[in-house]
Amino acid sequence: MTGHATDEATDTGAATDAGTGPAADVGTGRGAIVRAARRAFALRPYAEVTLRGIAADAGVSASLIVKHFGSKEQLFNTVADFEPAADELFAAPLDTLGRHLVLTVVRSRREQRGDPLLRVVFSLGNSDERSLLRERFREQVTSRLTALLTGPEPALRAELIAGQLLGLGATLSLHPSGAGSLATPEHLADLYAPALQRLVTG
Amino acid sequence: MTGHATDEATDTGAATDAGTGPAADVGTGRGAIVRAARRAFALRPYAEVTLRGIAADAGVSASLIVKHFGSKEQLFNTVADFEPAADELFAAPLDTLGRHLVLTVVRSRREQRGDPLLRVVFSLGNSDERSLLRERFREQVTSRLTALLTGPEPALRAELIAGQLLGLGATLSLHPSGAGSLATPEHLADLYAPALQRLVTG
Repeated sequence: MTGHATDEATDTGAATDAGTGPAADVGTGRGAIVRAARRAFALRPYAEVTLRGIAADAGVSASLIVKHFGSKEQLFNTVADFEPAADELFAAPLDTLGRHLVLTVVRSRREQRGDPLLRVVFSLGNSDERSLLRERFREQVTSRLTALLTGPEPALRAELIAGQLLGLGATLSLHPSGAGSLATPEHLADLYAPALQRLVTG
Repeated sequence: MTGHATDEATDTGAATDAGTGPAADVGTGRGAIVRAARRAFALRPYAEVTLRGIAADAGVSASLIVKHFGSKEQLFNTVADFEPAADELFAAPLDTLGRHLVLTVVRSRREQRGDPLLRVVFSLGNSDERSLLRERFREQVTSRLTALLTGPEPALRAELIAGQLLGLGATLSLHPSGAGSLATPEHLADLYAPALQRLVTG
């Protein structure tokens, strides 16, 4: 499964620093575990995911995972959480939110922190416990954004905004050597943010 | 795996008519085979996909698949083809293409023909032969659209347009009981097409 994990890391920019890790990780392996767990739960049925496999991918021992996170279920609940991503995405006034959303998605990818939302699309097409990932997305991203918006049809506009953000991540992953991957975050925002802002403003 | 397949069908509207099939299918099972093959190749590694499994999902015999399509590789090449979808998506003048794109995606889903593009995102996060699906998408959708566009940075705009179309399908699949699923195709086009048209016009 290493091939899959490596490819996923490349495609999403989700974990290319697994093994080295940002400074906060040094000595704990916590970030590497979270990234390996995201890959594992996104790509395989819940029942097939093992702490041992995640540990091998993260380069740590299974007992270290138990120490940091507890059970497999507790680890899943940790990585199925979109709240930190939503906190960052929605941290701007409504009149500039469109641009902030694009810059946040692109910069998170460029800084090797991974796409904040895209892993939910890996769960499309599967049933099993991954449906929890989709429920969390609806609660923590779409419903939260709906509550932030003013004007007509906030739920519909929130769904379409979520779609545009997922689509931005999807196309950057699909075209890893493409024009979008070469463009600056600011230039991508110039092209893509007006559409988002139009849906934000209503 | 039936649970997965059923869920995928519901999520994407890709194959809810499998088993009954449109009129053209009656007596041949061809459409049911194609839909079952799309599900199988999108959800599982190529090496794990069997004609027997696809046959069981489609409600036909494995020998009927061989009769219609030949080998597993030939069947894969058939379903990894985005050209019919691109023919339909790009069949409008540039000055109205944005609206045509949205209506085509939404109507294809509503008419149970499935999302024309979305299955490529299931292949993100995986390596193996599914990378062919992504290559085909880049050739048959993104590059073809790039060649159609006039104005500056056509490749970048084509990638972002592809992203908006994938995002539309992704959010409709993620929110199967949401406001977008209840809205008419025309209303969705009113809200979503201006953004696409802006990128088409450049």
